Amino acid sequence: MIIDCHGHYTTEPQALHDFRKRQVEAFERKVPLPSPEVLKISDDELRESLEGAQLRLQRERGTSLTIFSPRAMGMAHHIGDEGVSLAWSRLCNDIIHRICTLYPNNFIGVCQLPQSPSVAPSNCIGELERCVKELSFIGCNLNPDPSGGHWSGPPLHDRSWYPLYEKLVELDVPAMIHVSGSCNPHFHATGAHYINGDTTAFMQFLTSNVFRDFPTLKFVIPHGGGAVPYHWGRYRGIAQDMKLPPLEELLLNNVFFDTCVYHLPGIELLTKVIPVDNILFASEMVGAVRGIDPRTGHYYDDTKRYIDQVSWLSETDRKKIFMDNARRVYPRLSARLQRALEGE
Amino acid sequence: MIIDCHGHYTTEPQALHDFRKRQVEAFERKVPLPSPEVLKISDDELRESLEGAQLRLQRERGTSLTIFSPRAMGMAHHIGDEGVSLAWSRLCNDIIHRICTLYPNNFIGVCQLPQSPSVAPSNCIGELERCVKELSFIGCNLNPDPSGGHWSGPPLHDRSWYPLYEKLVELDVPAMIHVSGSCNPHFHATGAHYINGDTTAFMQFLTSNVFRDFPTLKFVIPHGGGAVPYHWGRYRGIAQDMKLPPLEELLLNNVFFDTCVYHLPGIELLTKVIPVDNILFASEMVGAVRGIDPRTGHYYDDTKRYIDQVSWLSETDRKKIFMDNARRVYPRLSARLQRALEGE
Repeated sequence: MIIDCHGHYTTEPQALHDFRKRQVEAFERKVPLPSPEVLKISDDELRESLEGAQLRLQRERGTSLTIFSPRAMGMAHHIGDEGVSLAWSRLCNDIIHRICTLYPNNFIGVCQLPQSPSVAPSNCIGELERCVKELSFIGCNLNPDPSGGHWSGPPLHDRSWYPLYEKLVELDVPAMIHVSGSCNPHFHATGAHYINGDTTAFMQFLTSNVFRDFPTLKFVIPHGGGAVPYHWGRYRGIAQDMKLPPLEELLLNNVFFDTCVYHLPGIELLTKVIPVDNILFASEMVGAVRGIDPRTGHYYDDTKRYIDQVSWLSETDRKKIFMDNARRVYPRLSARLQRALEGE
Repeated sequence: MIIDCHGHYTTEPQALHDFRKRQVEAFERKVPLPSPEVLKISDDELRESLEGAQLRLQRERGTSLTIFSPRAMGMAHHIGDEGVSLAWSRLCNDIIHRICTLYPNNFIGVCQLPQSPSVAPSNCIGELERCVKELSFIGCNLNPDPSGGHWSGPPLHDRSWYPLYEKLVELDVPAMIHVSGSCNPHFHATGAHYINGDTTAFMQFLTSNVFRDFPTLKFVIPHGGGAVPYHWGRYRGIAQDMKLPPLEELLLNNVFFDTCVYHLPGIELLTKVIPVDNILFASEMVGAVRGIDPRTGHYYDDTKRYIDQVSWLSETDRKKIFMDNARRVYPRLSARLQRALEGE
């Protein structure tokens, strides 16, 4: 079994985009937000949006189960206010739930949080609980910058995050660090803001006591950890200059990296410098890069092929990357698979 | 000869820090700024600050000439206003000039620009010209975010940068992209802001027409290009999805990466994915990471050792990285070396 820990629903029917447009317009015009009831998307439409995309690619690439969440760019926490963010998050999470119900062997849910700039992250606890307890989701995406590229809120070690961290620990679900779109003209979303968000979060963890305060809290840093593995020597050296313990001890019980790195040399670097126990397979398909690499004849984001090519990984290593680590980081996924195995 | 294209004067005498403190206090109290005349640093003090640090390390590591500029963190363009930035930049550049005069075989100058938030970058032209024409500097450091981590100014493809780019082209000097300190609590300076600045600038070049408008303009992106080489497949794929030419054609006549990557696997990746003609040796010593790596017994920032260990580099490749590329990117350096060779 190959678990892809990072997939977004990026092939939504047009009706969802239209609804969002109406919602944002209603907010701007200060009239009541449209009711989610007005959005009609049939199960067939959901199936159709997935069959030729994520499901086809799963089959073609030989991956099995995708940990699936709403479109990251679509979260757009910087648009609207807390109420808009909650209404939009509930709606998007409900659609993920429908997809996971339609295809229980292909998708398992991770939720979008109703974050909003200047609103304490504890506002997300209710929706997180709903998704985990009622919709059987196994984690969430946490946006370290709900201002959308202005980085105007509190960093991840600020105490205002702590109630949310407490709930993550209590529910035993990890969070993937994932920014959304950028409304700052400096930052191209998928080319700069995403990668910067990953690097920034890692450094916030390195310089703070978050994991002393929450020893069992777990974060997945996507896109191969941003710039972190490439600069692993820099981070080891900075920690050492700060008289901190080695990074393995300081962070690697809590921080995991996915494999969304779209060329072999990058995956080689990742598997060379990051312990294999901290690497989770992911492709982010259908996502940031959709083309075929003319140098290989394969999709850039077919990351399984790169991992298959790394000569120094043993079969045990590969099994960890493809499955075991995801089961360890997402205990509710593991419990589900165990139940399925036992024929529930 | 081994040219280190990225060194800052980070071992300044205390008197310089004290002067800066007085200057900033004067600005805050709205009284006249202290005259640079009051700062007394003797040649012996300059020598002493360098002998046990940069000069010792040059000797120990076998590097020859450092392209030297004021402390990057010290630029702090977000502090004060345009007048403070100009007074401070002139002072810092003059000290670099004194150092280059004391040690003409060890240091060659690159200037700090008097950038200031909300001030058009054309305000830097005078100081750039002074440094190049009067102080014989060969380039400048250009801060893509003079707001210090708020990223509130115009991106690098904004037309307001163009007069400065015209002057860079006219003077035939490159700019190194280099942010300064961060006053945004999200961004650790050397661990996040620096690296993010590099990645962000690259993506701004990728998505803009700067090099169509300035075909001979040259930028060095330091710290191994931020996250860029690690995600080279991502950038190739994004460019392809945008129907842009291959990155080599789109950017690599104008963009160069230094080797400030503090471990062997990172340098291996860099030299594997970036054409050797686009890589310039650098260590940034004495800089962001000052310790000795217990795994190797050598300084993390002794980057020459990593390059020496990359098995697939030919002697010609190494000569390009250590010298030839710097001469090509910094034509005024090349001219100087040529004159020295001819015994001027």
